[in-house]
Amino acid sequence: MSDLESVYRDAITTRLMRRMSHALQHDLKSPIQGIQWALELALKSVAAEGTDPKARAQVEKAVDMARKELARLDKTSRAFLNDSGITDDTEQRFDLGEVVRETVRHFVTDAAMRNVRLTVDVPAVPVHVRGFRGGVSQAVLTCVLHALDSAPDGGLADVALKVEGEEAVIEIGDDALVPAGVDDPFGLGVLGIRLAQTFIESHGGVMRVTPRANGKRRRMCMAVPLDREPA
Amino acid sequence: MSDLESVYRDAITTRLMRRMSHALQHDLKSPIQGIQWALELALKSVAAEGTDPKARAQVEKAVDMARKELARLDKTSRAFLNDSGITDDTEQRFDLGEVVRETVRHFVTDAAMRNVRLTVDVPAVPVHVRGFRGGVSQAVLTCVLHALDSAPDGGLADVALKVEGEEAVIEIGDDALVPAGVDDPFGLGVLGIRLAQTFIESHGGVMRVTPRANGKRRRMCMAVPLDREPA
Repeated sequence: MSDLESVYRDAITTRLMRRMSHALQHDLKSPIQGIQWALELALKSVAAEGTDPKARAQVEKAVDMARKELARLDKTSRAFLNDSGITDDTEQRFDLGEVVRETVRHFVTDAAMRNVRLTVDVPAVPVHVRGFRGGVSQAVLTCVLHALDSAPDGGLADVALKVEGEEAVIEIGDDALVPAGVDDPFGLGVLGIRLAQTFIESHGGVMRVTPRANGKRRRMCMAVPLDREPA
Repeated sequence: MSDLESVYRDAITTRLMRRMSHALQHDLKSPIQGIQWALELALKSVAAEGTDPKARAQVEKAVDMARKELARLDKTSRAFLNDSGITDDTEQRFDLGEVVRETVRHFVTDAAMRNVRLTVDVPAVPVHVRGFRGGVSQAVLTCVLHALDSAPDGGLADVALKVEGEEAVIEIGDDALVPAGVDDPFGLGVLGIRLAQTFIESHGGVMRVTPRANGKRRRMCMAVPLDREPA
């Protein structure tokens, strides 16, 4: 299979999934709803007077545990349907700090397997921006992956989110040398970075890649406007 | 955005998701595991002697309901991770009847919105084949979608799975006229069908598209070898 052919195959996968979005959303949501009803029923079963208070307390504790896991599952599957391009990527206000933290968390195992140290530094308070969450998330994912893929064994990839004036700035540094050979033009790195830059810049942001030079590490930098609360 | 550019974008989505497969699998599985534990705890809470038998029966019923939904969710998310190209598509024995039924089920709403009648005819017994479930599923999906997209308003798309000798044969018929114009070379139809054919034929199957002619409807036909139980 040629490189371009594999690009086509991967594109078709996303397109098929997107066309099934209604059914897929339903398939993930409907059991979650069903479990919620079952948990309510369990609570009602021990709510009657005369029920042993200890049994009631234990069932309530179990239902509480299950509800927390269910909420986590619901949140995860929503983010997942959004970021995988299955549901429409609508313009929204979101916490860029959460996106950056989650992105890095998703690659902890990957980094460990490559023996690359991966660090993340995000403000403790939310950093709200407005835009297409899926597109921004993909841009961040692409840059983090590119850093991981290029860092040498024992190297470091560091991700930081900062607030600078009216902008949220994501900086990703790595130890990549300037590539000596020719990159795969259909690879995740070359294609992905180009698309990320196009996306960020067509949505009011700025993206630059500064190669390693003068003793400084390679840096990928994205800046997007903050969405401050009205005072 | 050019057509090819959108192909690249969609391909990157799949590639990013695939790279996060371990983390995504964990994120979907870990809450399911957590809910299972919580349900066990609820059962144990009412198992003690002296618990009101009615309350116990109701909690058991609720847990039973929740477990069924949980099993459904688990199955759905596994199929989903496989078919979306997120987890590796491993060679396995699977029921082609289930794949065909599920595929059609996923497009019932789509068909209704286009006012196309979509029918499915699958044997009542499992039709086992061996191969890459994700690839076969994508080929079937692509053909069903292509039939739906090409059928005129009020038209019919029919999907049938038959066993013929040592082969499982999927036939998809539609009322599509031979296209008058030039198809989008990067569209789901043209690209998808070409890739589906390449996939099916490189895995021991046969795929043909017979255009509408001589009063007969257009037919897309895929044949793959059966995997019979050893006698």
